[in-house]
Amino acid sequence: MNRAQLKANIFSKKSVLCVGLDTDLTKIPAHLLKEEDPVFAFNKAIIDATKDQAVSYKINTAFYEAQGLKGWISMEKTLNYIPKDIFTIADAKRGDIGNTSEQYARTFFHTYPFDSVTVAPYMGSDSVQPFLKFEDKWAIVLGLTSNAGSADFQLQPSGDELMYQKVLKTVASWGTPENIMFVIGATRKEQLQEVRALLPHHFFLVPGVGTQGGDVDTVCRNTMNEDGGVLINVSRGIIYVANDESFADKAHDAAVQYQKEMSVFF
Amino acid sequence: MNRAQLKANIFSKKSVLCVGLDTDLTKIPAHLLKEEDPVFAFNKAIIDATKDQAVSYKINTAFYEAQGLKGWISMEKTLNYIPKDIFTIADAKRGDIGNTSEQYARTFFHTYPFDSVTVAPYMGSDSVQPFLKFEDKWAIVLGLTSNAGSADFQLQPSGDELMYQKVLKTVASWGTPENIMFVIGATRKEQLQEVRALLPHHFFLVPGVGTQGGDVDTVCRNTMNEDGGVLINVSRGIIYVANDESFADKAHDAAVQYQKEMSVFF
Repeated sequence: MNRAQLKANIFSKKSVLCVGLDTDLTKIPAHLLKEEDPVFAFNKAIIDATKDQAVSYKINTAFYEAQGLKGWISMEKTLNYIPKDIFTIADAKRGDIGNTSEQYARTFFHTYPFDSVTVAPYMGSDSVQPFLKFEDKWAIVLGLTSNAGSADFQLQPSGDELMYQKVLKTVASWGTPENIMFVIGATRKEQLQEVRALLPHHFFLVPGVGTQGGDVDTVCRNTMNEDGGVLINVSRGIIYVANDESFADKAHDAAVQYQKEMSVFF
Repeated sequence: MNRAQLKANIFSKKSVLCVGLDTDLTKIPAHLLKEEDPVFAFNKAIIDATKDQAVSYKINTAFYEAQGLKGWISMEKTLNYIPKDIFTIADAKRGDIGNTSEQYARTFFHTYPFDSVTVAPYMGSDSVQPFLKFEDKWAIVLGLTSNAGSADFQLQPSGDELMYQKVLKTVASWGTPENIMFVIGATRKEQLQEVRALLPHHFFLVPGVGTQGGDVDTVCRNTMNEDGGVLINVSRGIIYVANDESFADKAHDAAVQYQKEMSVFF
């Protein structure tokens, strides 16, 4: 999917909602466990319930990989079930030397045809470049993450800036706002403003809203740009609101509420 | 596998050789392509040909993931075929927030029971900790990699040291030399000495020998410690020496030559 198509979907739905499918067998409603593929049954119901509000779905590959072959089958069925006009993210945090990153790009752009994949920057340019060679595909590179561990390296000084600032500026120079996005796990207004000032045109994937403490209003107010410019991911705050037969209805209600909060910015 | 078992195998074989199974369908001998599982047929022959010299096998998961389900099946068969007294590495470069890294640890320590997995440090402590909770399993964390991109962030100043030095010191404090190793892609004597001085007891996984320009003598001379302390990975320099029916014999000859160069350090 290219930027114009993503933008069109965002403005048509008046939404920047990304629903995170971190589907965990131990957390889904018990009545689904008798299905042949409980993970897919759950995801299918969640997609049906949220597809009018969501402009993106993010599949956290770790939860599928941990199930072995079964998990990859559930992942592929889920990917195929997502409507083609909704932006798909393989949240896989890959990154390796050039010839190996080529294989990862092939995995998530060809074998499993996602629109984008999350990429770790530590190994530098040749670890990211292979993801930028596919037309209408995106690398979503880790900039500032929302976990406690972000203090260990990302927030450490590097010259006269912080490490994540160096990462954002350096990685941005390897591609364009048409093929690179950044993970920005910020929840504070000042930090969001600073990152947006540094990169006015890039899309940001923002986790950490809902159960992790961020709020839609602050994120939208301080990061949205002329094309939308942000995808706000909510996982647990939508998919695990209820743990019984009402789970899909409750997910729908939560998605509607998030979309409503976002709609005032259009 | 614990450190004592790894050490025993190293001293018994007088070898620190790790054979990298970066098995690529486009590079293996043509006669194998008629096999039901060409990747496994290739790996099986390489393992048979090198298991008396190798103390470790490293499976580069990207090459398997790119094949989809077929690839994961080849990977599992390969892992099961490796003799149980040889240390196994899932070279997967994973790393995410805590609850997601738990899923990756489960993938590579339980679903696919490797002895170790390579881990990217950018997301900090909670992205690494879940890999340290499994008895006799190891996280092999990226310190200094051997690719050109290592200059982009790893070799940048961070306070009065370089980023990779901060990573080595910080990550080492999260575990012990019994559950953490580091990827050290150094080939220069001074850098190897400096890293060894910083971390006297940890094992290092050293790529970059052979086709990437490092040499066994320099690495062994400057990194080996009382327990061996290093695993030198060779991929292309062993598995792709020949591209015809002699490939396994040539791989054997190359492994014997590497082991001979290592043996003088015991």
